[in-house]
Amino acid sequence: MNSFGSRFRVHIFGESHGKCSGVCIDGCPPGIALSDIDFEGDLQRRRAGKKGTTQRVETDKPNIMSGLHDGYTTGAPIVIVFDNSDTRSGDYSQFKEIPRPGHADFVSLEKYKGFADYRGGGHFSGRITVGLVAAGVIAKKIISPATVTANISDIGGSQKWDEIIEKCMATGDSVGGTIECVAQGAPVGWGEPFFDSVESLIAHIVFAIPAVKGIEFGAGFNAAQMTGSSHNDVFISSDGKTKTNNAGGINGGITNGNPIVFRVAVKPTASIAAAQQTINIRTGEMTALKTVGRHDCCIALRMPPVIEAAAAIALADLKLCAITA
Amino acid sequence: MNSFGSRFRVHIFGESHGKCSGVCIDGCPPGIALSDIDFEGDLQRRRAGKKGTTQRVETDKPNIMSGLHDGYTTGAPIVIVFDNSDTRSGDYSQFKEIPRPGHADFVSLEKYKGFADYRGGGHFSGRITVGLVAAGVIAKKIISPATVTANISDIGGSQKWDEIIEKCMATGDSVGGTIECVAQGAPVGWGEPFFDSVESLIAHIVFAIPAVKGIEFGAGFNAAQMTGSSHNDVFISSDGKTKTNNAGGINGGITNGNPIVFRVAVKPTASIAAAQQTINIRTGEMTALKTVGRHDCCIALRMPPVIEAAAAIALADLKLCAITA
Amino acid sequence: MNSFGSRFRVHIFGESHGKCSGVCIDGCPPGIALSDIDFEGDLQRRRAGKKGTTQRVETDKPNIMSGLHDGYTTGAPIVIVFDNSDTRSGDYSQFKEIPRPGHADFVSLEKYKGFADYRGGGHFSGRITVGLVAAGVIAKKIISPATVTANISDIGGSQKWDEIIEKCMATGDSVGGTIECVAQGAPVGWGEPFFDSVESLIAHIVFAIPAVKGIEFGAGFNAAQMTGSSHNDVFISSDGKTKTNNAGGINGGITNGNPIVFRVAVKPTASIAAAQQTINIRTGEMTALKTVGRHDCCIALRMPPVIEAAAAIALADLKLCAITA
Amino acid sequence: MNSFGSRFRVHIFGESHGKCSGVCIDGCPPGIALSDIDFEGDLQRRRAGKKGTTQRVETDKPNIMSGLHDGYTTGAPIVIVFDNSDTRSGDYSQFKEIPRPGHADFVSLEKYKGFADYRGGGHFSGRITVGLVAAGVIAKKIISPATVTANISDIGGSQKWDEIIEKCMATGDSVGGTIECVAQGAPVGWGEPFFDSVESLIAHIVFAIPAVKGIEFGAGFNAAQMTGSSHNDVFISSDGKTKTNNAGGINGGITNGNPIVFRVAVKPTASIAAAQQTINIRTGEMTALKTVGRHDCCIALRMPPVIEAAAAIALADLKLCAITA
Repeated sequence: MNSFGSRFRVHIFGESHGKCSGVCIDGCPPGIALSDIDFEGDLQRRRAGKKGTTQRVETDKPNIMSGLHDGYTTGAPIVIVFDNSDTRSGDYSQFKEIPRPGHADFVSLEKYKGFADYRGGGHFSGRITVGLVAAGVIAKKIISPATVTANISDIGGSQKWDEIIEKCMATGDSVGGTIECVAQGAPVGWGEPFFDSVESLIAHIVFAIPAVKGIEFGAGFNAAQMTGSSHNDVFISSDGKTKTNNAGGINGGITNGNPIVFRVAVKPTASIAAAQQTINIRTGEMTALKTVGRHDCCIALRMPPVIEAAAAIALADLKLCAITA
Repeated sequence: MNSFGSRFRVHIFGESHGKCSGVCIDGCPPGIALSDIDFEGDLQRRRAGKKGTTQRVETDKPNIMSGLHDGYTTGAPIVIVFDNSDTRSGDYSQFKEIPRPGHADFVSLEKYKGFADYRGGGHFSGRITVGLVAAGVIAKKIISPATVTANISDIGGSQKWDEIIEKCMATGDSVGGTIECVAQGAPVGWGEPFFDSVESLIAHIVFAIPAVKGIEFGAGFNAAQMTGSSHNDVFISSDGKTKTNNAGGINGGITNGNPIVFRVAVKPTASIAAAQQTINIRTGEMTALKTVGRHDCCIALRMPPVIEAAAAIALADLKLCAITA
Repeated sequence: MNSFGSRFRVHIFGESHGKCSGVCIDGCPPGIALSDIDFEGDLQRRRAGKKGTTQRVETDKPNIMSGLHDGYTTGAPIVIVFDNSDTRSGDYSQFKEIPRPGHADFVSLEKYKGFADYRGGGHFSGRITVGLVAAGVIAKKIISPATVTANISDIGGSQKWDEIIEKCMATGDSVGGTIECVAQGAPVGWGEPFFDSVESLIAHIVFAIPAVKGIEFGAGFNAAQMTGSSHNDVFISSDGKTKTNNAGGINGGITNGNPIVFRVAVKPTASIAAAQQTINIRTGEMTALKTVGRHDCCIALRMPPVIEAAAAIALADLKLCAITA
Repeated sequence: MNSFGSRFRVHIFGESHGKCSGVCIDGCPPGIALSDIDFEGDLQRRRAGKKGTTQRVETDKPNIMSGLHDGYTTGAPIVIVFDNSDTRSGDYSQFKEIPRPGHADFVSLEKYKGFADYRGGGHFSGRITVGLVAAGVIAKKIISPATVTANISDIGGSQKWDEIIEKCMATGDSVGGTIECVAQGAPVGWGEPFFDSVESLIAHIVFAIPAVKGIEFGAGFNAAQMTGSSHNDVFISSDGKTKTNNAGGINGGITNGNPIVFRVAVKPTASIAAAQQTINIRTGEMTALKTVGRHDCCIALRMPPVIEAAAAIALADLKLCAITA
């Protein structure tokens, strides 16, 4: 459902065009210094307004409702709310009859029996990731001195992003991209196999992010083409450092002290200006649909801080799980 | 830890060279016909003995200890135990000082403070997947009439498996592979976003399987190179069927009624006959290590029923979660 | 931690003298009509202001932040926030050195390393139950047509409440009480033993309420003095109705179709005006402490709607768990 | 369902007259010395054969299937199986039509649609507690040097047990009893409020034990009759020790360093020799039923080690939860 984690728990709530988006964080240790300023960097990186992103620009001011006292976390749940201000709901109600290809409209209608908030994608919107980024800010403090950094590897399969994005914007189309994320400084021993391997938890939360369709760790899909003699990472020191890092910092589901490395495939935004064939599910008739409204041409551009947050949340949970007497 | 699922719960236990491997299954509905014979097919597919797999061949006879009465599930937990019989522990104790590259030896030693059962990989061994396959047999009954089928796509990046495997066997090396899994017949509406998307749960359990390093749904990593106009799956009927299936049967984390399709990257087995450089973590000295013992040259060959089981378990859980008044 | 339930999940947050108290509710089915007015009755019953309760009177206006659209629940998480307005924090900081007898001051200081919000009891305050009552309002809708009703059985062991309360108020003392709760109309079959028996879940959530120190179902502690021939409830109809109800509507941890009946022991409020001996934990010296501030003379008076909410939440969770294909 | 705990997790399985009863324990730290002998004491205390208990006497030999290596726990799941040997199933099938008053027959039939194993109570039998006691043995090692001890307070409301039990045996009746449990040596700080208070977790697991109908902590139901000035436990030293212990060692849901004290009400066994009126739920006709078979006249006599185990399991979980960096 809308909760992730066993020791460091994140509960997500909110809608795209409702009052707010936000997050309730449980299990945060007491005594961590925290203020509004801590959120600015990652929220700014996620914020729209740059070329290729939507013209809906939210202020994203974090409203810390609980769990903080005198500038420090108290050990009680931390609720952070982000008001929605720049919404233009217009007429989304047509999508209850005429679902947009590639969107959650159709499945949402069926699963929630017509009661889901369809405005701007409702609870399915990428807007919801603002709470995830906020939780990530706290998670990063918990895993410190370990760090997490994500960057765009390519857009549309190319390093020439600008060109591709401009072309898509010109044609009203959208485009996908790939993100690489690296966590440095995690010690040996995070991960709770059999089921809660590092890969399992990171993949679980990363696939919750709208538009993610693939993930690979270390050599990933390339590993499937390799031999053991070329894939095995040879030890070079007694603290577990290896010459290569085909394992992506994880053996047997547990961190091995080398950098954790994974890549994420982000599909193109489903909302495009070009007319697409779809079906009126009430009448059964084929119809052409143009998606108007403000959308990201390339949502991947805004994803690095979201992927970082997801990884940091999973790692914070695993760090707290790994602490024993 | 060693549990997966919220409504259909699987608890894994056992070791490679201990008494047994097995599984405790909770949340199985009452009234499902079940007998030893039901397990034969998938266990046989997983069993070693074929070219490219280990010479350790277990009988894999399921011993159903509880939860079954008069040939039907009762609604109480089902425990299934598989005795280990064909074990030759020999001297694994050296790996407590000299960890094998690519193995869990090093992280296990650190995390479990030297107390882990190191024989044959202990609880980290692929042997543990026998319980997963057993749980998968029951999960397949729960999701019926939906079905799950996995097949090898390629070994070592090539369709010419025989050749590649023979070459690896001759050189004492190992090789990876790719598995594709398709679930047919799932209705619209399985999946519990935000966090428990279909992709999230399947990826979570699939990454618990030893040697898995990547997963992608539908167009997957290719989607990152596509435009929205080519990626969006156009509707062709009012029950949600689409012309293409780039989404892999999942929108917004919820099944859309089209086949669920995903691919898994399996790395080469870490155990190889060739000498590899490693470090004696007690003395800090470099040393060469040859891994003797019986091992799979290509573990991917035995993985299709394991991947099927993992997918079926995740889908059974989501099916039971999706049932409402 | 701060979450309860598996299908109907309640996450509690907030502090006595912080910005707010509130609740995040996950797993609420879509399509339930809900508005601010629905909360008025139970919140009013819980509100202070009557004789024997604190003079801190909050408006308790529910601010529904998410999960509601066009007057109906959407299936997404519902967050309800109650602002704190009538707070007078004064000087609570002395309790960091001189813990009040019977209070959570001492354990909180130790567990949260001095970072807990101590003002008004912080996250330990009975103020937090406002969110529980709000969740209970929704839970009551889910279990409908079953109903839950709680009433005061006695105050200070006596039916003459008024007299006892006036005496306590006059002496600056406090007093305990007993609450009885009855759930009518639950069908046969709610409860998930072995561990998630109806008694287990109700007791779990009821003991989360500050000041509760005992619970008994049906004949309860009297049952320990009875013989089987007098305790067994004889069936009087084929739908499971029984002549007596010593079982309190529960056999084997599962509802049997008769009214669910339980009683709760509420201890006297720890805060009293009289001077009490305590220890300065920094200096180790004995000292006398008078608790000033506004407090409930008899918190039990405000508990019936809180107990009802707790029972309704547990039953809503069990109802949703009991729904199968 | 059949799992309890978040860090120290216990999964129960088995049936009264099936192959076995047992337990799967996850989250046990590595490096704890463990052997068959460790289980003897508590299993012997729970075992039948004494006056007032059933004549079905099981050998209760623990078969440790996994998670143990060279005499120490490994950190992997520990499965312990107890074979059922002394079973006489006879004809229990009549209870599918004619439910025994006070038993789970009726609710089980309804909930599990006739598929539950009805022999000897199946998964509802007190037999299942043998696995709980086994898990308790390990839990006691985890909480050490803290200890848990339970004793019978009274049988049938009287200290003259022998007399009461002999009378019940002579008339084929049964009788209830009260157990008191004390945990010594728990430090300040166990317990995870709001929802996972010490009382909440202990009550949750204790109410899973068949026949328990009430629990109270410290002064318990007596507290409801007290004033704050008499109930508050005055501090006598700076480590939190108090003069009285009306709180039962718990403030605000957290251990305060004083002994944890609680009492449990155990109802009389439902199975009695005397004829009782019941209903044939198929025909709707009233009928008299005598319960033949071997039963405990006073199940409370066998409960102290079961209550100890339950308390130890809850405390072990809370201890592991309380460990932080």
